[in-house]
Formats: sequence, C-alpha cells, structure tokens
Amino acid sequence: MDELLSDGIKSTPPSFVRAILKAASDPDVTSFAGGLPNPISFPQEKLMESMQRVVAERGAEAFQYSATAGIPELRAWIAERYNHRFGTDYTEEDVLVTTGSQQVLDLLGKVLLDKGDGVIVEKPTYLAAIQAFALQQPVFREVELTDEGLNIDELNTALDAGAKMIYLIPNFQNPTGLTYTAENRAKVREALAGRNIVVVEDDPYGELRFEGESLPYIGGTALPHGVVMGSFSKTVTPGFRMGYLLTKDHELLAKLNTAKEAADLHTNVFAQFVVLDYLRHNDLDEHLVKIRDLYRDQAQAMTDAMAEFFPAEVSFTKPQGGMFLWATLPEGISTMDLFPKALERGVAFVPGDPFYAEPGARSTMRLNFTNADADTIRDGIRRLSEVIAAAL
Amino acid sequence: MDELLSDGIKSTPPSFVRAILKAASDPDVTSFAGGLPNPISFPQEKLMESMQRVVAERGAEAFQYSATAGIPELRAWIAERYNHRFGTDYTEEDVLVTTGSQQVLDLLGKVLLDKGDGVIVEKPTYLAAIQAFALQQPVFREVELTDEGLNIDELNTALDAGAKMIYLIPNFQNPTGLTYTAENRAKVREALAGRNIVVVEDDPYGELRFEGESLPYIGGTALPHGVVMGSFSKTVTPGFRMGYLLTKDHELLAKLNTAKEAADLHTNVFAQFVVLDYLRHNDLDEHLVKIRDLYRDQAQAMTDAMAEFFPAEVSFTKPQGGMFLWATLPEGISTMDLFPKALERGVAFVPGDPFYAEPGARSTMRLNFTNADADTIRDGIRRLSEVIAAAL
Repeated sequence: MDELLSDGIKSTPPSFVRAILKAASDPDVTSFAGGLPNPISFPQEKLMESMQRVVAERGAEAFQYSATAGIPELRAWIAERYNHRFGTDYTEEDVLVTTGSQQVLDLLGKVLLDKGDGVIVEKPTYLAAIQAFALQQPVFREVELTDEGLNIDELNTALDAGAKMIYLIPNFQNPTGLTYTAENRAKVREALAGRNIVVVEDDPYGELRFEGESLPYIGGTALPHGVVMGSFSKTVTPGFRMGYLLTKDHELLAKLNTAKEAADLHTNVFAQFVVLDYLRHNDLDEHLVKIRDLYRDQAQAMTDAMAEFFPAEVSFTKPQGGMFLWATLPEGISTMDLFPKALERGVAFVPGDPFYAEPGARSTMRLNFTNADADTIRDGIRRLSEVIAAAL
Repeated sequence: MDELLSDGIKSTPPSFVRAILKAASDPDVTSFAGGLPNPISFPQEKLMESMQRVVAERGAEAFQYSATAGIPELRAWIAERYNHRFGTDYTEEDVLVTTGSQQVLDLLGKVLLDKGDGVIVEKPTYLAAIQAFALQQPVFREVELTDEGLNIDELNTALDAGAKMIYLIPNFQNPTGLTYTAENRAKVREALAGRNIVVVEDDPYGELRFEGESLPYIGGTALPHGVVMGSFSKTVTPGFRMGYLLTKDHELLAKLNTAKEAADLHTNVFAQFVVLDYLRHNDLDEHLVKIRDLYRDQAQAMTDAMAEFFPAEVSFTKPQGGMFLWATLPEGISTMDLFPKALERGVAFVPGDPFYAEPGARSTMRLNFTNADADTIRDGIRRLSEVIAAAL
C-alpha cells in the first residue's frame, strides 16, 4: 500500500490529540486535554424552534443542493456582525461559508501552497493547522509568540526568507491563550505592509472575550490579502460544522470557492438556514454573556489553583478569553513523559509537542478550562501539581 | 495575486456546470441541465420527527464535537445495508462518514495522488471528480465507456501506462446514464486483479435502479484496494451533505481518516444522528419505491419524446436508473455552440465538454430527467429537437 500513498499524506501527522482524548475519556480522569465548548453554549431548545420554522417556511429548499458560497442571508448577517464589531465594510460578497473553520485551513493550503512554499506560523500554533497545511508539504517558518504577540525580529527574518501566507490566531490563541496587544498588532501590520503575502487571522474565540476590550485585526480589510476566519462552533454549536471566512480579495475568494466546490459542493444548507433563523430570532449577545461569565469563572478557578499549587518554577498564561491556557515547565522536562504519570493520578492535559511545526520534546502543556466546574478544576490542578513537583 | 496561487488550483477548472445552472435558472427555461433530485425524495416531515427525537434523546451530544470517522451506529447501519444488498461482510470499522460523497473524491486525491501520478477515469466521467483530482495535478488516463461498460483494451493500455487509482461509476453513470453489464464487470475485475491500484466505485444512484437487477461491484470486497462510495443525497436529502465510503483496506482508511480530520474534523454530527434516527424509524425501501416510480416515468417520458422528435442522426442512452441520460449528435457539431441557441428556445442541457479530462469541443450532451413532469419534458425535448435539427 505504501507505494500508492501520496507524499503529502506521508508528511501529514496523524492527530495526536485524538489519541490523547481517547486516553483521557475515562470517566475517572479529570481531563484538561479536550477542546470542547461547554454544552451551556448550545442553545438546543432555540435551535429546535428554528428547525421547525425552517421546515415550515423554507420547505424543500432547505433539503436541496445549494450554492457553494453559502446562503446569501447568512453571509450578509456575518458581514454585518463584523461591520458592527469592527467598523469594517464587509458585504455578503466577501463571505464564504465553510464546513467548520477547519475547512478554511484546508482550502487556503490547497489554493496557496505548493511543495516547498513558505508559510509563517506562530510558535506554538494550532495543531490542526499544521496538519492541514502539511498535506501541501510547505516549509513552515515559525515565529516566536511572546506575551505581547509576535516577535517582530523573527517575523522580519521569516518574511525575508519568503512566504506566501502567514497564519495567526491573535485572540486567546490556541494553544497558549495569549492575546496580541494593540501595539504588537500595529507592528505586525507594519512589517506585513508592502509584502506580497496572504494574511490569515483565525479567530474562533473572538466573541468569547471575558476581560479587556476587543482589538482590531492585523490584516482584515487593512491589508490587501487579508483573510479573517470565524466559526459558530464556540458560540452556537460545533456539531453543525459551520465556519466562514471574510476577505476583500475577490481573486483569492474565487479560487477558494472553486476549491470549496471540489471539496464538498457546499456546507449543509439546512444547518445554514437553522443558524440564520436562530440568529434572527434570538439575541446572540445575551447568549454570549452566559458563556463568557462561565468561562471567566472557570479560567479564574484554574489560574487561582495554579498560583496556589504549582511549583514556583512553572509559569502559566492568564487568558482574556477563549478556552485554553498554557503552562511552561523548566527546560528539559518533557511534558510528553509527564503525560502517563498524570493520567495515573487521574488528570490529563495536552503535551506541547504537537503544537510546534518543528518536531521535538517540549516542556509546555495546554490546559482547557471550559469543561469542568471550579472544584473539579482545583482538585485536578492540585493533583497535576504533585506530578510536576515530583518531576522537578 | 497570481504568483501567490498554487499550481494545483491553477490547473483546476472552475465549475462550468454552476455557470450553466445560473443561465438556466430563468423560470421560463425548461432546464435539463441540473443534477437535482426531485424534492419528493426528501422525507421532510419524517426528518422533522427525527430531529425532535434526536434533541430529546441525545441532547448535547448531538451538538458537540464528535469522532472523525462518524457515529458508530450510522457506520454500522451503512455496513449492514451493503451486506444485505450484496452479501458482503462489511463492519462499521470499514466505513468513513463524509461531508457528501464529493468529499471522498477530495480525500482520495489527497491521500493517493502526487503531481504526475496516473489516475484512470471513464471517458466521459463526473466533472466534479475531474475537478477534485485536478488539484493534485495527476495525469488523467481516459478509458472509453461503451454501452457494455469499459473498453477492456483501452483499460489494459491505461493500466500498463501506470496509475495509482481507477475511478468508476458503474451504475447509471454520470453523465451518460450507462450501466456496466455483469460480463463487463467481470472482465474489468480480471484486468485489475493482480495490479497494485486503488479501485474506486462511485455509486450515488445505486438505490435508484428502476429497471433490471442490481449487479455486484467490480472491486468492493473482491479486490484488495477496493473502495465503494455512497451517499444519502439521492435517497434522503442532499442538503445535509452526507456521504460515505466503505473499504476493507484499513491502511488506506487510516490515511483517509487523517485527511478527513484535517479537512473538517468530522461531518455534521446532528445531521448524522437525524439520518440514523430516520433510517431506524422508517422503511427506506418503501420510500425508495416512490422515488424509483417517479424517475422511471420521467426517464420514459424523455426517451419517448426523443424517439418521437429527435433527428435520426442523434443517438441517446436508455438508463436503468439514476437521474441522467446522454445524447450524441453527429461528429463536428459542438453542443457548446448549441447551448445559447437552445437557451433562446427556452431549454437548457449540459454540453459534453466538461465531462472529459481532455479539453476539446464535443458533440454530446447530458440531460437530467428528474426535475420536470412528463408534459414539460415532452415539450422541452420537442423544442430542443428543433434546435438540433437546425444545426444538422
């Protein structure tokens, strides 16, 4: 079989996190390994009402083949939402509805990257972006992520080395929970201005800011090849697999549309009508307040417990939103080696390794705080701290 | 922008059919150009009942992230269905649920094809398969499709030239409506046996046979790298984008699973639960009888009208199922040139050109019969015959 496989799939890592999630699915394990939104974020009853209206009002149209770009009313709603939040001038013509925002990564990789092309990513970055881009066998150029945002010197070096795309997660980054400051965004924008590069900002958690003020995108409408990615996975439901991108670059968008059509023709149109109806009949902002209040408390419980229990040598981030935070152990301690020991003590996390384009043992770990109550979080962090202390 | 685009997307044709469908969407036009199932095939009320049960019984699980391969119960149902129909021994472990069967084409292209690799396709074949594979820049080796099935001499020549995959639509082929005979299937199987090649059989209309007996697959479980593709688009709803593949080749399946995860994590899980519930609470076979009866009458209306009105120089297929038939005009008459003239007479079809991997003007056309009643079909074919007659 091996000789039938493409070079692309041979260079694509299988999902490490899925393997970990399986190990951590034991009900006796407190898992900080997952990336699941809290079920409180799924407005099940309201979605059911929307389904009934969609069947009654749209009938067969909601079950038939549909346009590749997505239904116009939903695309217009998305454009309006961004215009309202950021003062942009997006229209429905700038929006492509996708099968989860994961699909945007797949489409961007296909449309932009040939073997050996450069793609700039944060160090560390979202592991499934590495996976999606790896199929095209690009050269990953990693740029250090600091508490402020990107390391500008490293960014310039990477840009000079050549890249067709830069992929960033500026808000409550996955995996680190870090948010780029306004100053850093301006510097990154300045470094990118005048460069011929597609600037992709992935923002699945942007609406889940529970501290501080929303900040403008680096590219968005401010740079000619700006692409903003969004998702309904963390605000309505991930099960529907509904994401989208916005871009004013219509030459790029036309190619993404062709790639989207070849990938799955269009996104589930019934789900599109249901989400649209839900958004029209309900106050999303009110719904988001509930999610933010919950996640703020859970994040606080986790950082409080870390401050109380973690050895002083361990540092950790304090996210202003999103679902994750990031702990850094003293260099030389492999969190991959730590994982089975933590599992024995009934607690799971994701070792840092898969979040780096460059393979190697890491002393970092990602912790999810959205799926356990405060007491469980405190108890899990306490047990984890004992495992860490024993390794120091 | 152009210098930022990948070679893959540059060699991928934008969808020609979508452009045609737009031209043909004028309500005054009788369109035989589409590929839409008749809305009678969407069990809307039953699906609504299933949605209510899914929300009541599954709750948050139906809205949360889920496993890449698809929900186990649905995979088991699909395996059982094929075992019942074909006497195979598939299990849920052999099934991957996908975002429409279009996604299977995308995944196969990624997992198997590098630039310059051979892929054998029918001449003509499904245009969106050409599109999906073209992203990988393979060499297409076309094998003539006859009334019996594949031209075996051409098949052997193509196999000798080298190919990693052969892609076939053995039942009521899109675009031709042709079905491989049992004898031809046996000969194709014999030609493929002992060759190291993935044998893909796309069968979206298999359950829509309105004449004759169901025939075994060429590969399926009979060849080591057999892959069978299926879909709920023509039997339940295309709007949900739910397809699947079955294969006993678990090394290949593991790679397809990795590619699926990188593409969209998993298929809409709510839709999976709804289709599963629908299949468990309703008699699919009873539902299929209605669809088959309708399509049989529509196909008959079209071939009757063609026999009555078409000039004798025009030949056409008589499908045993599916949604399309294929007309062949005398050589030298470009159906692409004919298209605007037909549109002026208020009738649309798809010219043959985009169904061939090799570009060039064709004298063939695809006609869909599932979306108009018998009188409309007869009248549309009469007008089309006048346009054809004028061009002879």
